[in-house]
Amino acid sequence: MFPRRLRGPVTIIAMNHFADRLLEAVEKKGAAVCVGIDPVYQRLPAAVRGAQTSAVDAIGVWGRGILKAIAPHTPVVKFQSACFERYHQQGVACLNDLMRHATDAGLIVILDAKRADIGVTSEHYAAAALEVADAVTVNPYMGPDSLQPFVDLAAAQGKGVFVLVRTSNPGGDRLQSLRLEGGHTLAEEAAAMTAELGAEHVGSRGYSLVGAVVGATKPTDMAALRRKMPRQIFLMPGVGAQGGAAEDIEAALDEHDGGVLVSASRSVIYPAGAIEAKDWAGHVGRAAEAFCHQIAAIG
Amino acid sequence: MFPRRLRGPVTIIAMNHFADRLLEAVEKKGAAVCVGIDPVYQRLPAAVRGAQTSAVDAIGVWGRGILKAIAPHTPVVKFQSACFERYHQQGVACLNDLMRHATDAGLIVILDAKRADIGVTSEHYAAAALEVADAVTVNPYMGPDSLQPFVDLAAAQGKGVFVLVRTSNPGGDRLQSLRLEGGHTLAEEAAAMTAELGAEHVGSRGYSLVGAVVGATKPTDMAALRRKMPRQIFLMPGVGAQGGAAEDIEAALDEHDGGVLVSASRSVIYPAGAIEAKDWAGHVGRAAEAFCHQIAAIG
Repeated sequence: MFPRRLRGPVTIIAMNHFADRLLEAVEKKGAAVCVGIDPVYQRLPAAVRGAQTSAVDAIGVWGRGILKAIAPHTPVVKFQSACFERYHQQGVACLNDLMRHATDAGLIVILDAKRADIGVTSEHYAAAALEVADAVTVNPYMGPDSLQPFVDLAAAQGKGVFVLVRTSNPGGDRLQSLRLEGGHTLAEEAAAMTAELGAEHVGSRGYSLVGAVVGATKPTDMAALRRKMPRQIFLMPGVGAQGGAAEDIEAALDEHDGGVLVSASRSVIYPAGAIEAKDWAGHVGRAAEAFCHQIAAIG
Repeated sequence: MFPRRLRGPVTIIAMNHFADRLLEAVEKKGAAVCVGIDPVYQRLPAAVRGAQTSAVDAIGVWGRGILKAIAPHTPVVKFQSACFERYHQQGVACLNDLMRHATDAGLIVILDAKRADIGVTSEHYAAAALEVADAVTVNPYMGPDSLQPFVDLAAAQGKGVFVLVRTSNPGGDRLQSLRLEGGHTLAEEAAAMTAELGAEHVGSRGYSLVGAVVGATKPTDMAALRRKMPRQIFLMPGVGAQGGAAEDIEAALDEHDGGVLVSASRSVIYPAGAIEAKDWAGHVGRAAEAFCHQIAAIG
């Protein structure tokens, strides 16, 4: 749907960097957005559920419909691994199939899996995730050596990593906003660690292949995180098509008014009225288009 | 191999608590140990690799051999999810098959997956993991609401959760040993959070179904973690059959000289000489037996 143009060898090397690829995709579509695909069987359109015999089959049919509906609008798609893993091997097969469909549709694919373990184990997680996806989300608690295998493999393959730095769930404050000796927060320390992991991997456009997951938070906190991570693309989930997002996004922008990829899931893939609509994919396409226009207007 | 005896209804209710079940299993076998199963194709016995056409098939055959060899000795087995996920849907099918085999052999099964996400997503991870395993490891970075779905489901099903509190990988210090305002470490704060999550879920033997993953660390740090978590079973990985473990384990014991489950992986499943031996399972069984004797002597 969005075939990559053939280029000369020099350009191919430059374009192989994940952040460069991401920025090119964003420019093509005109909005720095990501649509999150979090399939929950009970929320799928009635028309899809009625026509399929298993939950995984329904998710597969729905997912292909979603991809077709959103691909003209969004440059990036993020798959929530848990929603597929719930169905064990059938779910993993469905996830990989949909990620390949998304790649074929010209989308940049992020696998939201929030993995990490000791280094030798992280090598397995990295191999699994980056074999299919363009980027994977990881958890910083175990420290830099637990994330290095993801960074190394991503660097070798033109792929990316997003480190969980700040989450906006109610309990996210419990550890992340704790103040350390010196006065800065744990999230800021995770931000510094993320910047270090990505320092050697900055592409031609100024961004690292190591980005950060940063949920909407207080503008002052966001400014502190941006100071620690000037080269990171911020993946900002949970903003959605609701109002009130502009302030959070503006606080996250870097000195070039960039570096933010805004993600919405439920507001796009489960828009009002879609569950009972025959043309549910039309609803999804229009919700994706509206979300992209909203974010493009901020940027 | 170790069928559960039928009991009257009152006892069944009491035995249904994860920590009670775990302690009974430990007493039957006489050692508070766990054997970690981390299959890496290149390390499997040559006899197994030569007889199978795919890596996953080899891992399945090897895994069943491992379980048969260790089941007479260890009460608990821990599967490393990453080593299976590396093989996508085939690996997940193999993992679930081996976990079911382990349950049939009377073993308590821990899935080492280190998951967590926002609450609604953690529900999916919890459902997937606890449908097959007796317990799952989780990551505390996102806070208590990210772990609550695991605790709730475990409580409803007589299963358990182990929260990653302190890891002994070199980079584990980077965030976990940071000092917070007040002077305690991040790991101690994660320990306090773990104790709170488990406070309402203490079994008849005094231990919570919410345990902690605590790698071997300095004895003074270990004592501080135990003070924060008097009701937690410490799952201690990476001790192995090497010397020097006794001091770490003794520092972790609670006031009743209990509350520790020592885990070894590579030293048991890949013992010296096994890779080329026809009777590789015999090597593994003897390594498991030696490990159990070593730990039983400490306790």
